[in-house]
Amino acid sequence: MVTKNVAILGSTGSIGCNTLRVIETLTSPTLRVVALGAGHNMQRLADQVVTHLPEVVSVESENAAHELRELLFDRNVDLPRIVSGQEGLVEVATHKEADCVVSATVGAIGFLPTLRALEAGKRVALANKETLVMAGELMTRAAQKSGAELLPVDSEHNALHQCLRGERREEVKRIVLTASGGPFRTRNKSQMKEASVSEAMRHPTWNMGAKITIDSATLMNKGLEVIEAHWLFGFGPAEIGILVHPESVVHSMIELVDGSVIAQMGITDMRHAIQYALTYPERHSCSLPALDLTAVSSLHFEAPDLERFPCIRLAYQALETAGTLPAAMNAANEEAVAAFLDERICLTEIPVIIENVMNRHDSQPVETIETVLEVDHWARLAARQEIEKLAKKPASVAWISNDR
Amino acid sequence: MVTKNVAILGSTGSIGCNTLRVIETLTSPTLRVVALGAGHNMQRLADQVVTHLPEVVSVESENAAHELRELLFDRNVDLPRIVSGQEGLVEVATHKEADCVVSATVGAIGFLPTLRALEAGKRVALANKETLVMAGELMTRAAQKSGAELLPVDSEHNALHQCLRGERREEVKRIVLTASGGPFRTRNKSQMKEASVSEAMRHPTWNMGAKITIDSATLMNKGLEVIEAHWLFGFGPAEIGILVHPESVVHSMIELVDGSVIAQMGITDMRHAIQYALTYPERHSCSLPALDLTAVSSLHFEAPDLERFPCIRLAYQALETAGTLPAAMNAANEEAVAAFLDERICLTEIPVIIENVMNRHDSQPVETIETVLEVDHWARLAARQEIEKLAKKPASVAWISNDR
Repeated sequence: MVTKNVAILGSTGSIGCNTLRVIETLTSPTLRVVALGAGHNMQRLADQVVTHLPEVVSVESENAAHELRELLFDRNVDLPRIVSGQEGLVEVATHKEADCVVSATVGAIGFLPTLRALEAGKRVALANKETLVMAGELMTRAAQKSGAELLPVDSEHNALHQCLRGERREEVKRIVLTASGGPFRTRNKSQMKEASVSEAMRHPTWNMGAKITIDSATLMNKGLEVIEAHWLFGFGPAEIGILVHPESVVHSMIELVDGSVIAQMGITDMRHAIQYALTYPERHSCSLPALDLTAVSSLHFEAPDLERFPCIRLAYQALETAGTLPAAMNAANEEAVAAFLDERICLTEIPVIIENVMNRHDSQPVETIETVLEVDHWARLAARQEIEKLAKKPASVAWISNDR
Repeated sequence: MVTKNVAILGSTGSIGCNTLRVIETLTSPTLRVVALGAGHNMQRLADQVVTHLPEVVSVESENAAHELRELLFDRNVDLPRIVSGQEGLVEVATHKEADCVVSATVGAIGFLPTLRALEAGKRVALANKETLVMAGELMTRAAQKSGAELLPVDSEHNALHQCLRGERREEVKRIVLTASGGPFRTRNKSQMKEASVSEAMRHPTWNMGAKITIDSATLMNKGLEVIEAHWLFGFGPAEIGILVHPESVVHSMIELVDGSVIAQMGITDMRHAIQYALTYPERHSCSLPALDLTAVSSLHFEAPDLERFPCIRLAYQALETAGTLPAAMNAANEEAVAAFLDERICLTEIPVIIENVMNRHDSQPVETIETVLEVDHWARLAARQEIEKLAKKPASVAWISNDR
């Protein structure tokens, strides 16, 4: 197998760093980094540039670009081409030498670059589930038109992709996403209402970024994954189930028409899914420890509690209505999560805000990027209004929210 | 899909009856019974003949044939052709209209008919694991030569067959057979020594025949399955693992080179595996209840205890030595199990007898059927000698043992 060239959107985040570790340790096939896109962690990005020598690097702003240049001064490397903003990310995503684009930015910012990568026929290893939630129709249509492959990096969808190998679509009855249940699986409603940011950040099994960790605490993460699974694999809402499985050993499963269940299991390390997406259809050996079921000893399963975790219900509702409602829900969720992380609202107010925004939204067909971006913008403003009504204090830094 | 014609070796046993239930309930594809082979349960066989109208029926002996004719008198059916003995079973196995032969006799008796079915190019749905243990080389060579398909009905191997769909052999690191652990999983050695036949017959999860249930109590069943897996899938002894899993929900699993684990799960009903083997590569809907993991709630895994269950060690040893040693081990096991069921020896003496016979056996290459049958015959005599040394009382009816 020849060398594959990789571009990474969101290289300094959790998935981005793990992608670089996979690239560093994989001996066959050889992977080469050609472009990196990052947000604000210039120190880490500078180190990545020194190690991987990409040709193009995109950062959040001109200020960040300036900071990066200073950090790279005297580091004995040829400076990469440094670009910035949305355009910069699109340049990374469509780098002409890139075979595979890892889409791992957080939230809605990865939307346009990912679409451009698919239009350019790149294999997209997708960790940014918001992309498919916002505009699954546009993404899958672009991939079909260009022949681009869309491979999920989310461990659940990666698991489903593996389970579906060798099965015929019409013989698969349903797919089942497992959920750890998050840090509040066994808490009651009033405990959840009083949950602090640091409690919500304590994910029981996966070590991830802030946004996705809060989404895991509200189970909105699973709701987003239901919509993501719909677009990736073509199953309808009634054919997608959720099963709470606190150990996160079974990453997901499929149920066949004959009653057989095929499950994918593994340790909770994102590098497995990343490597799979980069090297598919081949599988290559991996230096990570193997799953030891005798050490895990027992696996538990329970139905999700839709009453304590209304975000799941909202996501199914968005998927059933379809059109722009999932995009509105996603934007409202991002704003609400940011407000929770900013300690303006409590955890149980996140679904309240989302539902209020969804009720105000008039869903329309997703026909163009502009439609989606407008709805995203509208829903953020609407969410901020809803947040204002409930907020305990004024906004500080909107460090996750992303205006366009 | 057109109608498939099915012949069943061992139609009145557990697998045989379940096969007929699958045939009765499956609406697509249509399956038709063309030939049945059974042992001594003529009452049940007569009912099967009335329901399924096979063209040929084979029974144990001329006496049994006479009994069957009497039972069918006045039942308002055209009498099928009734044959008997080993030759009769071969006639069932090679019936010219049969597309698929279900090989479900107990013990070594199914060996020759199964081989003949493979030589005749029939799909063989194999429940008789002894067949592969005795002469895997001859069986797989015959299948390769004629182009016959060998599909496992054993739930573990059926699960492995499902897990291996869509994977490349060189990317599979190892296969892992799950084991319920049997009724003595949590008992100590002295409790096992004193185990009665009825205790040993109490299998925790599967409802099966006597021989296989005792094999499950000694874990020899798992040992035989290791050898069976070797011949079915081409993995060496070091690439085949055993994991004790008391709930028997995970029927088996494979580990890929990249660390991913694919497992097949289901309820403990043999009809799933039977239907899969009859309809492969298609899957058809099934009237059995679906697996409900929330009802099962928890799954447990532990390493097998080779000290309390020496049959596992013996089976690996037989597979490593290869040649005729597995056949000798299998024959000694059948004799020892029969002696235990006859209350002549205790449960923990089964592996002692097998090991003594294995130590006395001089393994040779498996080149012809005659070699295998001679070793089978020798090992039975040797096992009887070993049993005599330990037996508490003289033999009564050797109701499982099968002389040739």
